[in-house]
Amino acid sequence: MTRSNHTHDVSRKSWVRSANDGATDFPIQNLPHGVFRRASGNENFRGGIAIGDQILDVGAALARNLFPAEAREAAQAAARAPLNDYMALPPDKRSAVRSAVSFLLSEDCPQRKEVSECLVPQADAEYALPARIENFSDFYSSLSHATNVGRLFRPDNPILPNYRWLPVGYHGRASSIRVSGQDFRRPIGQLKDPNSAEPEFAPCRRLDYEAELGVLIGQGNELGTAIDIQNADSHVFGICLLNDWSARDIQSWEYQPLGPFLAKSFFTSLSPWIVTLEALEPYRTGFSRPEGDPAPMPHFWSPELATRGSIDIRVETLLQSAQMRTNGATPASLSVSRYPDAYWAMSQLIAHQTSNGTNLCPGDLLGSGTLSGPDPASRACLLELTEGGKHPFTLPSGESRTFLEDGDTVIMRAWCERDGYRRIGFGECRATVLPARRP
Amino acid sequence: MTRSNHTHDVSRKSWVRSANDGATDFPIQNLPHGVFRRASGNENFRGGIAIGDQILDVGAALARNLFPAEAREAAQAAARAPLNDYMALPPDKRSAVRSAVSFLLSEDCPQRKEVSECLVPQADAEYALPARIENFSDFYSSLSHATNVGRLFRPDNPILPNYRWLPVGYHGRASSIRVSGQDFRRPIGQLKDPNSAEPEFAPCRRLDYEAELGVLIGQGNELGTAIDIQNADSHVFGICLLNDWSARDIQSWEYQPLGPFLAKSFFTSLSPWIVTLEALEPYRTGFSRPEGDPAPMPHFWSPELATRGSIDIRVETLLQSAQMRTNGATPASLSVSRYPDAYWAMSQLIAHQTSNGTNLCPGDLLGSGTLSGPDPASRACLLELTEGGKHPFTLPSGESRTFLEDGDTVIMRAWCERDGYRRIGFGECRATVLPARRP
Repeated sequence: MTRSNHTHDVSRKSWVRSANDGATDFPIQNLPHGVFRRASGNENFRGGIAIGDQILDVGAALARNLFPAEAREAAQAAARAPLNDYMALPPDKRSAVRSAVSFLLSEDCPQRKEVSECLVPQADAEYALPARIENFSDFYSSLSHATNVGRLFRPDNPILPNYRWLPVGYHGRASSIRVSGQDFRRPIGQLKDPNSAEPEFAPCRRLDYEAELGVLIGQGNELGTAIDIQNADSHVFGICLLNDWSARDIQSWEYQPLGPFLAKSFFTSLSPWIVTLEALEPYRTGFSRPEGDPAPMPHFWSPELATRGSIDIRVETLLQSAQMRTNGATPASLSVSRYPDAYWAMSQLIAHQTSNGTNLCPGDLLGSGTLSGPDPASRACLLELTEGGKHPFTLPSGESRTFLEDGDTVIMRAWCERDGYRRIGFGECRATVLPARRP
Repeated sequence: MTRSNHTHDVSRKSWVRSANDGATDFPIQNLPHGVFRRASGNENFRGGIAIGDQILDVGAALARNLFPAEAREAAQAAARAPLNDYMALPPDKRSAVRSAVSFLLSEDCPQRKEVSECLVPQADAEYALPARIENFSDFYSSLSHATNVGRLFRPDNPILPNYRWLPVGYHGRASSIRVSGQDFRRPIGQLKDPNSAEPEFAPCRRLDYEAELGVLIGQGNELGTAIDIQNADSHVFGICLLNDWSARDIQSWEYQPLGPFLAKSFFTSLSPWIVTLEALEPYRTGFSRPEGDPAPMPHFWSPELATRGSIDIRVETLLQSAQMRTNGATPASLSVSRYPDAYWAMSQLIAHQTSNGTNLCPGDLLGSGTLSGPDPASRACLLELTEGGKHPFTLPSGESRTFLEDGDTVIMRAWCERDGYRRIGFGECRATVLPARRP
């Protein structure tokens, strides 16, 4: 497993000036991968790496022969859209690309003129999904979220007996995952008011977001084999932001006994930039369980979990109403969560999902589940923030909210900070609720 | 919508003699599509059409210029593996291919020598999945199955209030779908005996099959739009056999609150031949609800449903143990189901799944759910046949079964019969249970 190396050095600076700005998500220590093109013109989508407010066009750098021989073949995969072939490479091949790009963008690079010709301003770009996502599984890793939501759906029985024994998860819909910046219509569906005898077919009235992290799989496994927890992280390509939009009124009526279906399948948003696991290495942190909880079964445990099983990622969710946008008001922060508050670690999700022989494929997406923590300021969906819609809150514009209104934009951001290391960020994941189509 | 036409004429015969055998699944009236290659050698998989005990190699027929101009472009898509591009064509383009192939294989065809050079014996072939399946949704269309199973999982509350209002479904795992003939290892997972305080991690002890029909989507819809029930069938490419292998002990422990996950994701079997909706046209039959049940909501109803909303497909499940195989004993029939016994029609599943704006894609798979009917002889999984393992049954070999043992082969077959029409069949869907890997 790759540990902290020179590409993480806090003293490392880029000749791309915006990358040295303390506020940027994309210093030279980050180097996340994505798929982009210039918004104007008829370009094809292609692979890029974010640096400051620019994008390194990997194919353009290859065309100028800027990669060393040992990184060239892997860089060709990083230049193609979608990035599945790159994700499928062994971690050391991808690490060679990271080292090469870190050098090309560093102050030490003698070829900065040629490299600068390969930069595209992020302001001129549009994005596509970084991977062809063939399989999406969504988990329920936060005990706080499961407790808060469980209390609303099953007041007498919020946490079911299996929760502490296995990472509860379900299959999500892959076809309706879209990249940040694409908006969606409020879904229509069957809703059943507890006071009505019959359901109705109408636009969702309890539309919600769920702030999650998305784990993108690198190398997969063969059907019929399991990924050992000690190797699980080596199957991770990187992490991005995921908004698992949810129609709570559709959900509460449809979800028994086979789980959420149309309540979630209408749209899922993903951030365009994937922060690689190698970039996240310095922010590793320990992982533990509350005293008295069952010890994880052997296939869910390795000693490494205790010291570096989680990653100290903070996830913030913000909301900007249409009125706030019109008035130029900045988005209002609704919550900040910590990934280490999750009850189940990323490697445990992978060990669990493959324990029955299921094959993961490069580009598969695993959602963490809503990342709420024990602190009320970390409730990462409106269902929890308003306790099922019972307690509205007020936006800085004076508008009141229980659930999302048409025109609301939800923005997710995330970052890692640690003494002695540069802050790195995830960019943003943003989408706006459009009015429902006519039923 | 295509109705019965000359390609269905019972008097139509093929110069391929085996296609005129009354017992064949593949008379000239059927013409199902699949993906095959010769098992020996290093051929690429390619598109084919079954006729009697032969396969028409569509690409070989194109190379001999045997298709009329109006069918040529569509036939090129039917020659490529997987068949997604062909599935995505408008139904009338695919209908032109069917007409052309029906003529080429008919007794009237003057080019039978050239066409015969394009045939590959099914005995020499191996198959791949007919489509790249990016999304798999599985439904719960049989009220009898839901009642029988619901009684075991929730004795006091077998049928939940939503069942008669919407087709309950969930997302399945797409990556572990395999074509008939591929075997799988018994899954390992967390099992919780009701009498034990804690779960264990062990090979599944209650391994089951589920006999279903699989609907493969032809043309998809745009994200954010719904497919109207009156157009729903025009989005269907065809129907195949689906065995939704299920680990009942994993399922009962894991499934709350988010539904089945590892209990199903380890393996799913699909038959190699897709019977097109056009071939199924003569076997259309009416669809009705029991008296007193709620009327379907408007988006679930069109007058056509009452007269031709279902298709009279019979689905048989057979079991052959390792001992029976060794002794040359024929597989034992366990059940025969009727598709019209389903509570929800195929068009209703499509209207439901897209009602919230979810996009279906060409090659997407929708499972009917286990096709049990009210008759005990139509219980289409062991959980129902043995009432949760309480009532073992005896095979002709004298062996006893509650759930599946290692070495058991489960075989599904299906067919349509109607006076005045030829019987057509679906071929078979077969797989054998291999021992679990070591935990």
